[in-house]
Amino acid sequence: MSLGACPIPISDYPVVTMAHGGGGRLSRQLVERMFSAAFDNEWLREQHDGAVLPAEGTHPVMTTDSFVVSPIEFPGGDIGKLAVCGTVNDLAMCGAVPRYLTCALVIEEGLEMDALWRIISSMGETAKEAGVQIVTGDTKVVARGQADRLFVNTSGVGFVESRHAVRPSAIRPGDALIVSGDGGRHGVAILATREGLSFESAIETDCAPLHREARALVESDVEVHALRDLTRGGLATACVERASGSLRFRLDESSVPVREDVRGACEIFGLDPLYVANEGRFLAIVPEAQADQALDLIARHGPTDTEPRRIGTVDEAVRGGVILRSIAGSERPLDMLSGEQLPRIC
Amino acid sequence: MSLGACPIPISDYPVVTMAHGGGGRLSRQLVERMFSAAFDNEWLREQHDGAVLPAEGTHPVMTTDSFVVSPIEFPGGDIGKLAVCGTVNDLAMCGAVPRYLTCALVIEEGLEMDALWRIISSMGETAKEAGVQIVTGDTKVVARGQADRLFVNTSGVGFVESRHAVRPSAIRPGDALIVSGDGGRHGVAILATREGLSFESAIETDCAPLHREARALVESDVEVHALRDLTRGGLATACVERASGSLRFRLDESSVPVREDVRGACEIFGLDPLYVANEGRFLAIVPEAQADQALDLIARHGPTDTEPRRIGTVDEAVRGGVILRSIAGSERPLDMLSGEQLPRIC
Repeated sequence: MSLGACPIPISDYPVVTMAHGGGGRLSRQLVERMFSAAFDNEWLREQHDGAVLPAEGTHPVMTTDSFVVSPIEFPGGDIGKLAVCGTVNDLAMCGAVPRYLTCALVIEEGLEMDALWRIISSMGETAKEAGVQIVTGDTKVVARGQADRLFVNTSGVGFVESRHAVRPSAIRPGDALIVSGDGGRHGVAILATREGLSFESAIETDCAPLHREARALVESDVEVHALRDLTRGGLATACVERASGSLRFRLDESSVPVREDVRGACEIFGLDPLYVANEGRFLAIVPEAQADQALDLIARHGPTDTEPRRIGTVDEAVRGGVILRSIAGSERPLDMLSGEQLPRIC
Repeated sequence: MSLGACPIPISDYPVVTMAHGGGGRLSRQLVERMFSAAFDNEWLREQHDGAVLPAEGTHPVMTTDSFVVSPIEFPGGDIGKLAVCGTVNDLAMCGAVPRYLTCALVIEEGLEMDALWRIISSMGETAKEAGVQIVTGDTKVVARGQADRLFVNTSGVGFVESRHAVRPSAIRPGDALIVSGDGGRHGVAILATREGLSFESAIETDCAPLHREARALVESDVEVHALRDLTRGGLATACVERASGSLRFRLDESSVPVREDVRGACEIFGLDPLYVANEGRFLAIVPEAQADQALDLIARHGPTDTEPRRIGTVDEAVRGGVILRSIAGSERPLDMLSGEQLPRIC
């Protein structure tokens, strides 16, 4: 952990107590020694109720996410990294450059102080990687049994600096569907940890900030019609949410990249990888003629452990929806799941 | 309830289920029928991952708060009203005009759908009263026993439109301390509900948005040095947080307005009203010569069931802090509480 040891003396406070959330002396100590150390910036130093940010002439974009993932630490990440990436990615998917984050914690009394510090450190490091500052926050502590270890809310503000905002209403028949990398890794990593299963090598979450590749796309000549990060419900749900009205998405299952170990784990768990969550992959919808350029930009600016693929096209139909051409060659409609496939995956 | 009956058919779904948080069909139904109905605006209709807001030439201000109050409904308010007011007030205390809010829910499986609707309606109504729009949100559902009914996070963005931003570093010796109304009502209302105590007439929370009186102050000629809403830790904690370096706050206990029924309840609970939370009162610090003007502005624009009072002065000392001149005439220092006086009060 590059930020060093826990700055709260864990001999005095091995776990978080109710008093750490009471708004008094211990609350202040937690904020000043731990959060300010990990997130250090001029706004936190001001110790105001909120952060007064520099004026910008462009559209602000605002987003929020609460994270309740269980367990709070897992291969390749933790709830803090997940929260920062999730909020950065929501902003990036709107075509914005992510800039400022808030961090609000609901902590169950008894959480190990050292675990809290690992997660706060991880948030600080991920924020740095993503080029954002955590400018204000809030901490509540509830009694044992009234929450499950730690819930994290991150809200974010970014600014649209490019020529055009990315809006789902821009999708047109003839557009190409592109996925930025391999599917299902986050969901499988969490589920394997939860079930105590280990595979030949641990499957790590794909959790990562997507600001670089998203920015490269929106600042290029590519007329980006939609961007959507793949979270709960995976690629299938992202497509169903965007295919509406008279837009029909045609997906080619054989083009969708899923790693062999992830596919094997999905078989064991009885899951369809198309519906399993990622936290560092996205769907891009661009005009057919610019698909190759978009693939090239994502490959150059995205993570090196995977590559983007063209997975289908948008066409016009009397009634919208998503049609999957399976590996076996048959066609079937994809829909949202009505139940809960994987609770507390993010 | 001016928004009418619960828009989710409670014969089908009398309580929130895990599937309402799964990101699939039922999640979408909850968002479209309930949240969009209560918070209706152009940004929610866009159904994006975030809200692309209009550009403004002035400083954006950003804030966040998570609310875990128990019970979630109480005399004069509920967790939703509390959340909207809390975030509106944090923005107002920075000298900003509150504009956009996010709403992120962590719901315990089994929460009555009708209770959720009452709270969401209340958020919509309070947002309208405060002149803010709830532009984006997030919903997570956790299993029974993993949270306590409902936790609400609201984050907010406002813009500083006045000539000067309000910053705690502007406080000067000679400034007057003003409290905008009577103390301790929110904390006593919650505690009485929780303990099942009833007084001659129910003590209602003072929970209210403070945007009008705060705006009147920052847009006037008054050189506002600091504004601070009284939440956890009450008036005493707000003063201790602001009195630092060589600034000493001198409070006159006999000037601090506390209603007789609230004072009586505090005696029963063994609480010092100076440390009990409000959710619709604030501390204003202004130059001595402008104290009367500030009192007049707060009285004209604030709630009609209370009135602002001058409660003390700032002077210079070798070491800062807060000195209380008690009703009996003796002087004692006030400090932060180190423990947790009233858990889950907000």
